[in-house]
Order: sequence, then structure tokens, then C-alpha cells
Amino acid sequence: MKKYAIGIDLGGRSIKFGLFTEDGELVNKSTVNTRIDDGGKYILSDAYDHILKIMEKHDLNSTNLMGIGMGVPGSVTQQRYVNKAVNLGWDFVDIKEYFDDKLDLKILVENDANVAALGEAWVGVAKDYQSIVMVTLGTGVGGGIIVDGKILSGKHGSGGEIGHMPLLKEPLSRTCGCGNNRCFEQVASATGIENIALDYLFENEEDSILREVENITAKDIFDAFEKNDHAAMNIADQYFSHLARGLAIIAAVVDPEAFVLGGGVSNAGDLLLDNVRTYYKKYCFVNNRDVDIKIAALGNDAGIYGAAKLVL
Amino acid sequence: MKKYAIGIDLGGRSIKFGLFTEDGELVNKSTVNTRIDDGGKYILSDAYDHILKIMEKHDLNSTNLMGIGMGVPGSVTQQRYVNKAVNLGWDFVDIKEYFDDKLDLKILVENDANVAALGEAWVGVAKDYQSIVMVTLGTGVGGGIIVDGKILSGKHGSGGEIGHMPLLKEPLSRTCGCGNNRCFEQVASATGIENIALDYLFENEEDSILREVENITAKDIFDAFEKNDHAAMNIADQYFSHLARGLAIIAAVVDPEAFVLGGGVSNAGDLLLDNVRTYYKKYCFVNNRDVDIKIAALGNDAGIYGAAKLVL
Repeated sequence: MKKYAIGIDLGGRSIKFGLFTEDGELVNKSTVNTRIDDGGKYILSDAYDHILKIMEKHDLNSTNLMGIGMGVPGSVTQQRYVNKAVNLGWDFVDIKEYFDDKLDLKILVENDANVAALGEAWVGVAKDYQSIVMVTLGTGVGGGIIVDGKILSGKHGSGGEIGHMPLLKEPLSRTCGCGNNRCFEQVASATGIENIALDYLFENEEDSILREVENITAKDIFDAFEKNDHAAMNIADQYFSHLARGLAIIAAVVDPEAFVLGGGVSNAGDLLLDNVRTYYKKYCFVNNRDVDIKIAALGNDAGIYGAAKLVL
Repeated sequence: MKKYAIGIDLGGRSIKFGLFTEDGELVNKSTVNTRIDDGGKYILSDAYDHILKIMEKHDLNSTNLMGIGMGVPGSVTQQRYVNKAVNLGWDFVDIKEYFDDKLDLKILVENDANVAALGEAWVGVAKDYQSIVMVTLGTGVGGGIIVDGKILSGKHGSGGEIGHMPLLKEPLSRTCGCGNNRCFEQVASATGIENIALDYLFENEEDSILREVENITAKDIFDAFEKNDHAAMNIADQYFSHLARGLAIIAAVVDPEAFVLGGGVSNAGDLLLDNVRTYYKKYCFVNNRDVDIKIAALGNDAGIYGAAKLVL
């Protein structure tokens, strides 16, 4: 008998569902909108309704369905309790309790960044590794740490919250979403490189293609870099250096086999990898020099893969 | 039948042996000198001879002795292979292989800082916690990370090598033992605060008790601080800030329940704790605010405790 698992990625805009075989084959993928009104109180019932549809359509029951895993954008403890998920409008939710009343199935929950890391370590770019750190370079910087195949969740479900490492000795003039002003994500996220650009162009008189761009994005900066725009190269250089130093710090703490870079900025591909690797080797402890740095392979599907893997 | 374990702490000057009951009671403690001549080739045979003595004296055999754990000052992988232990004169040593020929007992090896952390988490100041980071503030800064009761060893046996996190964006003029010049231990070790003092007294004209001290130690600085010496207070303040920012970074990565501070500098006790806690709360991510920071309880015995715990 073939066995299956459902992986769910709860996002602020949509809830993604993936049905997987034990071997990591994605059988079916579907999406419903996230209703965040009224404190997000419809989210779990919407998810439950859709789970029932998937189960019916694919003839699944408590014998051939090994369970349901879920990634949530918030802190998760004991693989069930969500403590604040701002994007969902949630304060405190016990997800296991909600589903235990309705389904005779294993339900396991983890933070979404951790779950994405698990997905990459299962069937993605890191599938040959046991211990990795996934770094998601988007609006913020998310992190997921896998040690010997298992998620490092931490006491408060904040393991791998690397975006809020106080990387900088001197505070920035801008304040991070978390209230601090020395955060890794303030200089290593997509927003981070955009802010580095704004400061650079304000402080320097230098000509640059970027001066003609109205809302400068990370992509604009890397495009200008490829055209040998000197200002863009200096801006990107600052960014690479910050990012690489952050990775070198993390490596000294957890000594992983590989870093996996995901999120929008990782679309820069080799330009990002080559430069970050160079700075990484400069900053890292000698024992961590051979750590691989790779671009994520599963894109937005990493979450559903990793969520399914939780219960397999 | 009572069960026992032997914990061994291999140091550059002495080999410490502890005989423990399963419950963590220290039955007997003994020490032999470390012979580091000829590439440290006598160390394991000396240890073996002493193990036999302990076994004979306490009527131990493969039935009532659950095994032997060992802490080694170097990188250890797969709880048996030592890759370079400079203080012992070792290059590569397979410790399990050496003992397997001679003893019918479980032999497990780990890095000494990791083992000390395990000791504190077993019966020391962190005995009520499952996940801690031990930070040893000595000549350098050592680290040991325990996650859910288990050592985070890392791919190269360098998990918790926090002394070599590149904490500083701007390089220091001095070079660290590891060859880099941005290391946490360069500003957070006993040597670190001494160097901060030298720089401070050179760059400032201010009067200070410390100007009359020939070789300034961490203790001199904290003593002067207690006497309200302004320079000493500024020096210590820089030190506390660096140390606390390092802890806040580590907390964002592994989200532990507690930090345990050991090593010579931790003798400063409350003066250290109060100031580090204040800066820690300023720098840390909001979810990590309630992490406890404590002074280690087992002192130099942490190693033998943790080593024994490896096999229990």
C-alpha cells in the first residue's frame, strides 16, 4: 500500500497544500486564499475543509495517510502551539487540539522558515546533507536550521531567527521591525540592500544608472552591477560583505555542512554566490571554510515539502 | 546493582578522571600528568593504565561500568575521531579504536568545551534546562551548545566554536590565534578585556589605578571598577557590551533556555552578570529576552562530569 502525507504552508495571502508520497514525490498541489479577517479565525476551518476534499479525491484515510504537517509564519513550540503569527492575525493557537477533534491523524506544526529548510534538506538542493542552515533573503531575512536531519526549534520556537542577530556594533539610523537597530536583516535582506543603495547614493556624488530608477530594488542593483556601474558595485559589495559575515558567524555557532540561500535576492544566482563565497572565506573560522553555499531549489514549494516531511 | 561511568578530561597539563554513579554522584577523583612529548603518544596509554587502576580499586567490570567518556581539547567527529588537538600534540587520533582493542566498554569522545556544557546541564547550574549554551571566558572563548539534552557537535566537530565568530565589522589591529582579526574571543576573553584596557589607557590621558599595574589582568580591571575607577568602568563597559552582543547573536541562532558563563572571567560574578544582562536585553531579539544568564557551578570539574554523562 502506498503511503502519503499532506504538507500545508500557511501564508498571509494563501494556504498551499501538497500531497506527497513517502519518497517525496509531489502528487497534487492546490491553494486556497487565506482569510485573515476576525483574527484569522476562519483559517483553520478553511484548511480543514480543503483537507477533507483532498482526502476524498485521493481516497485517503487514517491507514494510507501518515499525517499532516504544517508550516506557520510565527513561533511554534512543541510542534503544536503557535505563539503570535502576525500575518495570520493569530495570537495563541493550539493547532493540534483543533484538528485532534476532527481527524484521527498525526498533526505536526513548525515555523515556516524551518519547514522550508527541512524541505530543501529532504528533496531540494541540500538533499545530500544532514545539517544545513537555510537563509531566506526576502523583505526580511528568515532562517531555518537543520541539525542531523531535525529542525532546531529552540525554546521559544525562535531557533534560526537569524534575521534578528545584532550583527552591527554601531546602531543603524533606521529601526528594524523588531524594534532593534543592529539586525542582520537590516543589511542582508532585499530591503537591506535597497537601504544601502539609498544611503550610498545620498552620501556620494558619483554618477550611476541607479539615479534614474525611481524605486530601487535589489534586482536593479544587481542589473547595474552586471553593467559595471561603479556605484552599484560598491553597494552590492557592502551587501555581500554583511551577508557573508552573518553566515560566517552562524557557521561558528552550528558548524553546518551547507548554507542554502532562498528568497527573492537569491534570484541573483552566481553573482550572489561568487561574491558571498569570497567574503565568507575571508571571515569564517578555518574549520568552516569548506561549508557549501548554494541557491535553494524548491522555490515557493519548499514549505509544502518540508511540512509533509514533518510527519514522514 | 549500582552502575558507574568514568569521565575523563584530557588537558594539556593534566588528565582528570572522575568515577560517577548513574545519578551524577562523584565517587572518586584523580589526576595524572599529561605527557605531551613525542606527539602526545603516551597520553592514551597513560590514561589506559589509570583506568585499569580505577577499575581494580572499585571492583568495576563490563557489567557495572557503563562506559568511559572523554573530553578532548580539539575538534571531535562521530564521538571518536580527534582532528588536531594542538595542546596534546595530536594530529589525528581514533580514540575508540585505541580502546576497543583493550576494553570491552563503550567509549565516547567529545570536544572539552561541549563536554563541560553537558556537565553543567547534567548536575551543574543548568540542571533544570534542556537547551543551553556554555561560554567559557578564559584566555580564549570556548563554547558548548546543548540542544534538547544533546551536544551540538557540528559537521567538523566545531559546533559551538563561538570564540571565532567574526563579531566585528571592522578588523582589529591584533590578529587572533586562528589568523582572523574580527573574532568574538578577541574582545570577550580575559585576553580581550586586557587588550581593551591597553588600548584605552594608550588612547586616553585619564588618571587610573590601572596605570600603576604592570601586567593588567581582568581581575585588576574588575577590582578597579568596584573602586569606581572611571577608566576601568569604561574599559569593562566595552567588554560587557561586546560579550552581551555575542550572546544575543547566539540566542537568535539557537534560542537556548540559558547561557552558562564559565572560565576565569566568570569569577567576577554579579558584577559580570548584572552588566552583561543589561546589555543583553538591549541587543537581543524580543523572543530571547527571558533567556537566563548564569555563572557555571562545577568549575574545573565540569569536564569530568560531562564526559561521564556521555556514556550514561
